[in-house]
Amino acid sequence: MATSIAILGSSGYAGGELIRLVDGHPDLNVGYLGAFSTAGKTLGSVHPHLRDGHRILGANDPEVVPDVGLAFLALPHGASSVPAMALLDRGIPVVDLGSDFRLDTPQRYLNAYGDDHPYPDQLGHWVYGLPERHRSEISGTDRVASPGCYPTSTILPLAPLLAAGLVEPTRIIVDSMSGVSGAGRGVQAGLQFGAVDESAKAYKILEHRHQPEMERALDLESASPVELIFTPHLVPMQRGILTTIYAQTVTGTTLDDVVAALEHVYQDEPFVSLVAGSPETRWVTGSNRALISVNLDERTGTAVIICAIDNLVKGAAGQAVQAANLMLGLDETSGLPMEGWMP
Amino acid sequence: MATSIAILGSSGYAGGELIRLVDGHPDLNVGYLGAFSTAGKTLGSVHPHLRDGHRILGANDPEVVPDVGLAFLALPHGASSVPAMALLDRGIPVVDLGSDFRLDTPQRYLNAYGDDHPYPDQLGHWVYGLPERHRSEISGTDRVASPGCYPTSTILPLAPLLAAGLVEPTRIIVDSMSGVSGAGRGVQAGLQFGAVDESAKAYKILEHRHQPEMERALDLESASPVELIFTPHLVPMQRGILTTIYAQTVTGTTLDDVVAALEHVYQDEPFVSLVAGSPETRWVTGSNRALISVNLDERTGTAVIICAIDNLVKGAAGQAVQAANLMLGLDETSGLPMEGWMP
Amino acid sequence: MATSIAILGSSGYAGGELIRLVDGHPDLNVGYLGAFSTAGKTLGSVHPHLRDGHRILGANDPEVVPDVGLAFLALPHGASSVPAMALLDRGIPVVDLGSDFRLDTPQRYLNAYGDDHPYPDQLGHWVYGLPERHRSEISGTDRVASPGCYPTSTILPLAPLLAAGLVEPTRIIVDSMSGVSGAGRGVQAGLQFGAVDESAKAYKILEHRHQPEMERALDLESASPVELIFTPHLVPMQRGILTTIYAQTVTGTTLDDVVAALEHVYQDEPFVSLVAGSPETRWVTGSNRALISVNLDERTGTAVIICAIDNLVKGAAGQAVQAANLMLGLDETSGLPMEGWMP
Amino acid sequence: MATSIAILGSSGYAGGELIRLVDGHPDLNVGYLGAFSTAGKTLGSVHPHLRDGHRILGANDPEVVPDVGLAFLALPHGASSVPAMALLDRGIPVVDLGSDFRLDTPQRYLNAYGDDHPYPDQLGHWVYGLPERHRSEISGTDRVASPGCYPTSTILPLAPLLAAGLVEPTRIIVDSMSGVSGAGRGVQAGLQFGAVDESAKAYKILEHRHQPEMERALDLESASPVELIFTPHLVPMQRGILTTIYAQTVTGTTLDDVVAALEHVYQDEPFVSLVAGSPETRWVTGSNRALISVNLDERTGTAVIICAIDNLVKGAAGQAVQAANLMLGLDETSGLPMEGWMP
Repeated sequence: MATSIAILGSSGYAGGELIRLVDGHPDLNVGYLGAFSTAGKTLGSVHPHLRDGHRILGANDPEVVPDVGLAFLALPHGASSVPAMALLDRGIPVVDLGSDFRLDTPQRYLNAYGDDHPYPDQLGHWVYGLPERHRSEISGTDRVASPGCYPTSTILPLAPLLAAGLVEPTRIIVDSMSGVSGAGRGVQAGLQFGAVDESAKAYKILEHRHQPEMERALDLESASPVELIFTPHLVPMQRGILTTIYAQTVTGTTLDDVVAALEHVYQDEPFVSLVAGSPETRWVTGSNRALISVNLDERTGTAVIICAIDNLVKGAAGQAVQAANLMLGLDETSGLPMEGWMP
Repeated sequence: MATSIAILGSSGYAGGELIRLVDGHPDLNVGYLGAFSTAGKTLGSVHPHLRDGHRILGANDPEVVPDVGLAFLALPHGASSVPAMALLDRGIPVVDLGSDFRLDTPQRYLNAYGDDHPYPDQLGHWVYGLPERHRSEISGTDRVASPGCYPTSTILPLAPLLAAGLVEPTRIIVDSMSGVSGAGRGVQAGLQFGAVDESAKAYKILEHRHQPEMERALDLESASPVELIFTPHLVPMQRGILTTIYAQTVTGTTLDDVVAALEHVYQDEPFVSLVAGSPETRWVTGSNRALISVNLDERTGTAVIICAIDNLVKGAAGQAVQAANLMLGLDETSGLPMEGWMP
Repeated sequence: MATSIAILGSSGYAGGELIRLVDGHPDLNVGYLGAFSTAGKTLGSVHPHLRDGHRILGANDPEVVPDVGLAFLALPHGASSVPAMALLDRGIPVVDLGSDFRLDTPQRYLNAYGDDHPYPDQLGHWVYGLPERHRSEISGTDRVASPGCYPTSTILPLAPLLAAGLVEPTRIIVDSMSGVSGAGRGVQAGLQFGAVDESAKAYKILEHRHQPEMERALDLESASPVELIFTPHLVPMQRGILTTIYAQTVTGTTLDDVVAALEHVYQDEPFVSLVAGSPETRWVTGSNRALISVNLDERTGTAVIICAIDNLVKGAAGQAVQAANLMLGLDETSGLPMEGWMP
Repeated sequence: MATSIAILGSSGYAGGELIRLVDGHPDLNVGYLGAFSTAGKTLGSVHPHLRDGHRILGANDPEVVPDVGLAFLALPHGASSVPAMALLDRGIPVVDLGSDFRLDTPQRYLNAYGDDHPYPDQLGHWVYGLPERHRSEISGTDRVASPGCYPTSTILPLAPLLAAGLVEPTRIIVDSMSGVSGAGRGVQAGLQFGAVDESAKAYKILEHRHQPEMERALDLESASPVELIFTPHLVPMQRGILTTIYAQTVTGTTLDDVVAALEHVYQDEPFVSLVAGSPETRWVTGSNRALISVNLDERTGTAVIICAIDNLVKGAAGQAVQAANLMLGLDETSGLPMEGWMP
């Protein structure tokens, strides 16, 4: 019998993807949809592309959530903590797609976000929800902090190389480009068609909050602390992240070594594959897959590693469902698209 | 047990959608994939977004197709006739997504396509595969000519109104805009990003072959012959057709009459819905749905009717699967997406 | 010596185009730039693509405008009347790019806009600023109502045909598609990249305010009142309007007649040309040109006429400069781009 | 009196931009237009956006070029050498927008392009046409190799920092994204709208020919050899390059030092400006400007430098005209757009 789940924050892009995936999931069904300003409206008025549009959105209020088997929170930064703790108190496991519980110490949180965490004791007790690196911990917890989109595209290729000691942990360059849906569905001048179409730019240079998230997650893989320089870019497309990473290899490392380390880790993973050349983001649009390619500049010993994901699927809703599958004892791939759409 | 099917013409956009839909279909599976120039290559090299990319494409040759339960032909105009007849001779039912068998007489075919049909006796013996208008005939045949994308968006809203005698059959204006995938995947100068992006144009003005197809299909609905003026436009997007139809209502007809006639016909149809205002093509991207809105200019008695579909799904692969479901005695909606993706 | 001009409403898209054109104009220069919420900011912060970005925007206040030779108003609907009258009182000629003075009677204004005009006596005393139809009147006036973008693309092809009595004035279908800049630069949910990209829709069906403007302007050309049915569509591009017009020809009219009527009128016009097939909007992006093509459906006697313009140039700023050139006794083509950009 | 110029290779995107710029140039006019496959056709059939479309294209043959004051070559790689030498023999100065003469030694050419140069003695005798670094040499030569688009966006920000000894010359990361026009106008499957739209990818990883061009040009600035790692990306837009550079600063270097070095060099340059944050490519679309921003990661001492240009203007045609202005003794800025267009 299918497990009923709740989604708080259903009106955004990640919320819409969660509904799409859960509606198509053989073992889950939607038991509650919460929203802020669109509470009381129909699903169809918010997400006209989804089925059963007559469903009514409720409030983003943990008190009115029915007794579901799990709750996904797709809320803005800072808005997850209170409902998450309330739901956990009621015995409802939580997958938080926001950033509230991704860091591990109050100090790191303060550094990254500029204020104190409301539940500092919780930090470090949430499992970072990247199944390919933390599968068994996810299976055994009731609280998962689902990774950010940029971190997913960065940690998947880098973690095995750091763990194997093949690349230096310092001065790693992470240069990413993202489609516009990564900025969410809120109405902003900078996200108008006239501002985004036919243009590219960097933003939040050296100050994006995904950088400490990446470092914290990669510190778990590395013998010594990881130092990343991260530049996110906005490019005129709806979905997709392409991340290009430049890491200094340890002396004597060959391209074959790098490939072998990634193949060893990912050969049996359903959602991560190595490809030759450069992956294109459209190859994974709509799917939960991550594609990685590796190159080595022999002259300087620099590994040039590229990773493509769909920021709303493997970078958000798909990865959250993958974690939920593990938490609920389901097949990890259940309900998750292996194939995307093109064009 | 799932029925095995064959797809000839798997390397194009419609072919790719067919594979995507059949791969996700609970009652069908892919038994054979044929292609022209990419025969011998892997599916992954042609459609990197699909799963099981190691599958090898065979030839578009009906002789090497195994004994499948049904074959889809997604071939260029003129290329369907010979393989279709060969497959039917072997007892394999055929759904042809091409235009070879859509018209009903050798003369109409000659007028539309400028040459003689190789199997003139076949014309008129194929069922036009629009399930909402020809459901029982589709269920009982082994040969279906699946409608073109523009005709689907035109016939669905017009047929009930002509059948009910609410609009005049003459001088109906059909003004459509289509995404670029409607032009297929062949490499053309006019389809380069630099030629399409940030621009709109009409094409094949008064000479598009979908116009006789529309008239033939609507003649079946109308007491007197239908005369359409059809203008297709290309707009810079991948998928989607938005068709705006202008039809003179019969004197005394009200907006309520028009809405009621459509509601009567479509209220129980799973894939066709009426909406207020204008549908947006992104509401149906990836889904098999058609959305229709109706307006009436009281002053002139002109009905302004708008229909949105995804040209590759309801306008091609989805509709073909819908017909195949009927032909094979399956649930008509089986394997067909009710929801699309957005953004 | 160059004439100094003022622009009120400089921060929008039309305002930006006006600045671009005047900055490059050999006989005009910018004497004052007014804005609402961005008053006090630099031009560069509002239009980073323009030169001399250190210029400071002033208020949209006619009292602080210096004694310039002419003022352009690029203000929202309803905001032009008061500053226009104040500037005229000071002896400053005005070209209003807004809709306040385009209609000719208080009743027509009330019907179209739903409220009373603050200066009803002015209606009918402003010249409609389409130089190709009202050149001498524009030369002799101090107040010009510059046409809307959709009307420009409709009136240019239709006016000569109505004036020559070649098409019926009733039940003319005008089906237009526009790039997003036509909706202005205001921040709206419906204009976010995620809402516009990869989608098409109609809007304001049967209720767009450009329809009465078109009818009023075409009534001046026609022996009997003009009745238009107008449907605007939004397509995912920045600039450009493509309008497809369906008009019933008078019995006996041939395609040659239609072409000859347009050629006769436009053969010496610098900015209007006939083309074969369909013009593409990118052919005129950035230029002040309008391209027209004509087709005739022999069977129904329906002329299918297509017109392409850049909505911000010939549909707004360029046309306003063209009128200003006439008002100021300059060469009509001065400072106006004959060529656009591509890609 | 205006100098007459010739353009060989007029049918491509760079050729079209050259015509647009020369047509608007007060001191130059087009004396000859050459093309390969479109020779004999009208300009309007190839570049419908340009004025005087009735002009006929001639052959790309130096023998039929009239006695012009200068020739621009916008030809594919390898096709410039022969016509360049023939034109120089006739005393006609040449600006080559291609890559034939950008490198300095036969060995470097062989390494980069894989074959021997037909005129090895010429290598090293052409001036690299970046006016901001080689102004006086350009003024004194009759043969200029105009820089590539990616190199322009890389050399402008890096050259002053290397010359000032503020950044290390080794392991400089150059990560660029380009609009599609950078790939030229040739028809390719990978440049179809369906392949490019809504997707991002890297290409020619570690093997793009602009990398040796960058190193050669920067070696001229640096005390020791420069080593770059260069990754170009394709993003779905027509024009624009955004290059993000990561360079290790020399110990003790502050952000102020870096800014001061660039300000010192560029404060009087008309076409290069420093901006805060990240420039957006749309700020320079259509203009000859380059915008640079600088950031410093204090923790690792890494300078993160971003540069935006229009690949067809400052990255191709505009820069070529800038060099031609110098060669012909004209004002360097003559005919060059300081402002672009937006949206």
